[in-house]
Parts: sequence; C-alpha cells; structure tokens
Amino acid sequence: MDNDPRFGRIYLQERITAEFVLARHLGVVVEQADDGGIVLCAPLVPNANHQGTAFGGSLFCVAVLTGWAWVTRHLDAAQVAADPVIQESTIRYLRPVQGVLRASLRPPEHAHVEKFRKMLQRAGRGRIGLDVQIHHGATLATEFRGIFAAALRAPQGDPP
Amino acid sequence: MDNDPRFGRIYLQERITAEFVLARHLGVVVEQADDGGIVLCAPLVPNANHQGTAFGGSLFCVAVLTGWAWVTRHLDAAQVAADPVIQESTIRYLRPVQGVLRASLRPPEHAHVEKFRKMLQRAGRGRIGLDVQIHHGATLATEFRGIFAAALRAPQGDPP
Repeated sequence: MDNDPRFGRIYLQERITAEFVLARHLGVVVEQADDGGIVLCAPLVPNANHQGTAFGGSLFCVAVLTGWAWVTRHLDAAQVAADPVIQESTIRYLRPVQGVLRASLRPPEHAHVEKFRKMLQRAGRGRIGLDVQIHHGATLATEFRGIFAAALRAPQGDPP
Repeated sequence: MDNDPRFGRIYLQERITAEFVLARHLGVVVEQADDGGIVLCAPLVPNANHQGTAFGGSLFCVAVLTGWAWVTRHLDAAQVAADPVIQESTIRYLRPVQGVLRASLRPPEHAHVEKFRKMLQRAGRGRIGLDVQIHHGATLATEFRGIFAAALRAPQGDPP
C-alpha cells in the first residue's frame, strides 16, 4: 500500500510547495519518499546564520516537514482523508551544520503504525511519534522527535 | 544595566535581519525589547499553511529568535563578548494561530540570570532556560522552552 509510486517524491514535493509558503524560501527538496523512509534537503545559504552554519529554526522546519511528509504519504496511500498537524516536539542541536540541511526519517515500528491506524478508525483521530535526524556528513547533528496528530475530515454534506 | 536603550528594539531588529537570512522571509518585527521582556511578531501570510493557520515551523522560528534576542541583548548590555546558540528545546502547539504570530518572553528569574552570569565568568560558558509563549488574541496557542548556551569568544590575538 505504502509502496504506491503515486505518493512518492514528486507528489510530496508538490504538496509541500503548495501548502507551506515558507517551504519555497527554505528551498526544501524531497530527495526520497518511499517505504524505506523520507529524506528532505535544503541548501545552506537561505538557511544560514551569520556564523555560516544552519539556523536552528531552519533545522526545525526541515525536520518537521520530514515528519509531516511521512504522515501525509501514509494517510494518502491508505486513502484516509485526514490532515496531519504537529502537536509537540523536542529538538536537540548536537553539532553545527555547515552545509546542506539533510533530514531523514526511518519509518516507525509496525506496531506504532498499526496503533495509529486503529485510533483513526475507531476514534476518528490518532497520534504517532516520529524521529527525524539531521546529519552533517556522517555526523549526527540534530535530533528531532515530533508527535503528529491527524483527525478525519468531516464528510462534505450538502449545504443546509 | 539591561535598561540601556542602545540595546533596544531597533538594535535587535538590525541584528536579527543581518544575522539570519530566513528572518526576512518570516517577516520578523521586534515589537518590544526592554527590561520588561521581548516581543517579536511576524505576519501570517508568509508563514501560513494551506489551512490558513501558522506553520508550526514558523512558530518555532519566531519563538527561538525571541529567546535569542533576550540572550543577545543581555550579553551585549553586560559587555560580555559571547554568541548565544540554541542547544535544545521543546514546543507544544495548543491551539492554531490564525493571525499575527506574536511571541513574548518575560525575563527569567534573577537567580537564573545570576547563575548564567557566574558560569560565563568562571567557566567561559553558560546555559540558561527561557520560556516563550505565542498567543492568538488572548489565548495561549504555543508554548516554547529553549536552553540557550553561550561561550566567550576567544580573544583576537595577532596572527602567528
């Protein structure tokens, strides 16, 4: 199901660019979007601070969009009409990033994905925790954990 | 000391605009910077998602810049040559923000500020926790807590 090529790199790139005004200024590029995970990149220049390293706010933006991309892809491929939102998150800046901001997410454990699916089915809303890492070369630079929530869209009825 | 008008609104606006490329795209405006606290605003349009509410990444950026502004102002007014960086943070999204992103910070307790000052003096580096709130009208919409670190700049010696 999740392997559907209709919900791959190009699809998520279009969604991100269309739905987040700031994404254009961040220069976010979807590099990977498949069953193996999600990778989003952004160039350093528009995201730099004055010391020539990545702004912590930009690192957060790229990480949260990476999590959003996973949930969006998962829901769309499963034909679940729900919009994901970030509910809370923690981010740790371990090392400065002096080049491309490269955020990667490995799919969460199957049991967590199943729980998320069942919560959506039974209660119309669900939550899932996702981990995103940003590397500078081979070095882990930033650790992000976000709790994403999704609620089923109300069915479109006839106007009253 | 902190009351020095040289380190007020205009000063911080110039620093933020000069030092963070993304700040221009966020449209960050320093609304208040004095002993009473820091207030930063950003308009909704460049920070909106497709549902017409503020993007969680933009809310994080405005909050982290608010904390950075407090530390920068504090260090500069105290003539401490150190650059603040964000080390870790937690953010909770309680309600959507459907208008201006307005982040405010009340100065931390005097005892924490004193501890930060002594750590910098004794060890050349210090950490301080700061709380930033974003309101939508009178409603608390986003809670941010960040740990900021600062290290004294190495003295500029003659080239070897």
